[in-house]
Amino acid sequence: MSTKVRIGIIGLGQQGGMYAKFIAEGMVPNMVIGAITDTDPAKRELAAATYPGVPVYADYLAMLDGGEIDAVVTCVPHYLHPEMGIAALSRDIHALVEKPAGVYTKQVAELNRYAATKPELSFGIMFNQRNNPLYKRLKEIVENGEIGAIRRSNWVITTWWRPQGYYNSSAWRATWGGEGGGVLVNQAPHQLDLWQWICGVPKSVYAKVSYGFRRDIAVEDEVTAVVDYGNGVTGTFVTATHDMIGTDRFEILGDQGKIVVEGSKTATVTRLRKPERELSDSMGMEDVMRLFTGQLNMDDYLTTEVIEFDSVWGAQHAGVLENFAANVLDGTPLLAPGSDGINGVRLANAIHLSSWKGQEVGLDFDEDEFLSLLNDHIRTEGKYPERA
Amino acid sequence: MSTKVRIGIIGLGQQGGMYAKFIAEGMVPNMVIGAITDTDPAKRELAAATYPGVPVYADYLAMLDGGEIDAVVTCVPHYLHPEMGIAALSRDIHALVEKPAGVYTKQVAELNRYAATKPELSFGIMFNQRNNPLYKRLKEIVENGEIGAIRRSNWVITTWWRPQGYYNSSAWRATWGGEGGGVLVNQAPHQLDLWQWICGVPKSVYAKVSYGFRRDIAVEDEVTAVVDYGNGVTGTFVTATHDMIGTDRFEILGDQGKIVVEGSKTATVTRLRKPERELSDSMGMEDVMRLFTGQLNMDDYLTTEVIEFDSVWGAQHAGVLENFAANVLDGTPLLAPGSDGINGVRLANAIHLSSWKGQEVGLDFDEDEFLSLLNDHIRTEGKYPERA
Repeated sequence: MSTKVRIGIIGLGQQGGMYAKFIAEGMVPNMVIGAITDTDPAKRELAAATYPGVPVYADYLAMLDGGEIDAVVTCVPHYLHPEMGIAALSRDIHALVEKPAGVYTKQVAELNRYAATKPELSFGIMFNQRNNPLYKRLKEIVENGEIGAIRRSNWVITTWWRPQGYYNSSAWRATWGGEGGGVLVNQAPHQLDLWQWICGVPKSVYAKVSYGFRRDIAVEDEVTAVVDYGNGVTGTFVTATHDMIGTDRFEILGDQGKIVVEGSKTATVTRLRKPERELSDSMGMEDVMRLFTGQLNMDDYLTTEVIEFDSVWGAQHAGVLENFAANVLDGTPLLAPGSDGINGVRLANAIHLSSWKGQEVGLDFDEDEFLSLLNDHIRTEGKYPERA
Repeated sequence: MSTKVRIGIIGLGQQGGMYAKFIAEGMVPNMVIGAITDTDPAKRELAAATYPGVPVYADYLAMLDGGEIDAVVTCVPHYLHPEMGIAALSRDIHALVEKPAGVYTKQVAELNRYAATKPELSFGIMFNQRNNPLYKRLKEIVENGEIGAIRRSNWVITTWWRPQGYYNSSAWRATWGGEGGGVLVNQAPHQLDLWQWICGVPKSVYAKVSYGFRRDIAVEDEVTAVVDYGNGVTGTFVTATHDMIGTDRFEILGDQGKIVVEGSKTATVTRLRKPERELSDSMGMEDVMRLFTGQLNMDDYLTTEVIEFDSVWGAQHAGVLENFAANVLDGTPLLAPGSDGINGVRLANAIHLSSWKGQEVGLDFDEDEFLSLLNDHIRTEGKYPERA
């Protein structure tokens, strides 16, 4: 292999087109465009005109067998990610799958099982927000125990505003059969990943999901989920695509501190000088009054750090591409191993399942039951074949 | 009756003591202290020494029959509010009950039914935060339809920090038999009232409640509730008493705008120039890109108003006392009619019931079932008699 990874881009839509541009412009120094596949003749013409000399395919399998690429990135509807990942890996081609890793855990587990048989190959997922310095820092703070064990986390992430025209732009969008869901499978996978990456994987979830609530779509445009990590530790997650003045507020309360993130930009980290229970045990009602009336010197109890981050959206994606290429070239650890992709899919599936059943669902839910209910929706919709 | 209402204060503890002070200092111009009752001899000595000339009783019924008062305020453990309210009203004495109106809806409904037979008497509840100019303004904005129909509301209110010493300060505190619950019945009733006052009464609730989570108490010190108003409209409510760096963030999303309240002080009100769905229907993916890259001129779509409020805590209580006295004297409408008290109790009961049953509970839950389960907790605790 050369010193640069030759990437095969499957799908020259919004994401694939952006990655091609980043690579062509040198934003990913250890990667070159090896080939491009698109099923749409217009996109293939565009590819040939924009990237002269780059082989263009109509069929990704032909590209995999063409010998011009070392790796692929799967910029196609979510359902296709697992099978394309497996097809690449089975030909000893490294695979970077777009998020989400798939639509249902059963297919993602198959991808993960297959990838585990090819440990010599790189298998990554495009969780570009893991490359956001803010979230990297938060993960460090939590893992270092700087705020103690987590008591509760709450994320309201409604900055995913999408007008009706967005939904009308592609036939597969916001369908059960073509996309497999709405905000949970398209926009929120980033936060479903980050949340679990930083706060851990919950044991169960109860969710209220509003389908076609304020958009003319079959799938969900609003979600409210409560998760349970066991031992009284809980969390909430609220997301929507119809909030034009979106909120992005993430709060993590720990046994010895707290983190509040506003707008994915500013993190206010409070570190208590002692565990909160120790402080609590030594204080009484007069201290509450002093706290309320501003007479308690909070510096005696805690420190506050405000961290400002300025993350450029494109740089995150380019960074993941570069990290993936580095993993291929010299084994640099992956920021987002492909096998992590199943966590976000599992939580999204559990949220759908909870709303369909009207009850709390364990994260160890029956995958076949989920798929069967998903297929009920696909059948009723009548636009796409059922999934197996 | 004179031009001032003679109030009988039942219980000279924290709240009763504060009201006595406010009245004695002239903060409630249309009210005087008529008499004081406390079962604790030390408190009676304190009352006699602090308010010379004011009759002091050991038994509130004797005070009711003493002829020195026109009205009472019930500053006693929550369970006692309904029976004391009824005892006063039955003697044609006006009643201002402390919040919560009671511990379980069955007893509060009895109070409400009795009060309805005495429409000539004033019957109020101490929801002092309804007298906070911020929440009064929010209610107006929502009722005027300035942000359209509500889509979702989320309140994280964890500024109710209470150290262990607070819980240890009275034997009845944080017990099932003496207090009837934790943060839901003691601290959060204000927000349970304001939330429903502004956003309406939900149809059902699902809750995760952590009992004795980070305090040595039998009752709840943390609550996460998801409510459903029907037709896809939802809300969340998170409260706790163990967050030293408490959050108070209330967000209401409407069909034509949004309100975000921070710290019960700053309200950011966004009003869309058209209903969001109309805007959505005329926009496409290119507008999303323009929005993300800051190229969309938001002034074309909305206005933003930031309202700062500075509400003095004591002034709220004094204002409710004054409003109640005005209702007695000249029929000025009550800010907080006593009959409204049942809403907060009902939601708190439903939250407990949901957590005990591990399922979603309608707000029309079976009151007898709730009381029976509450009595199970009282029996297990073994400190107080069961309730009927």
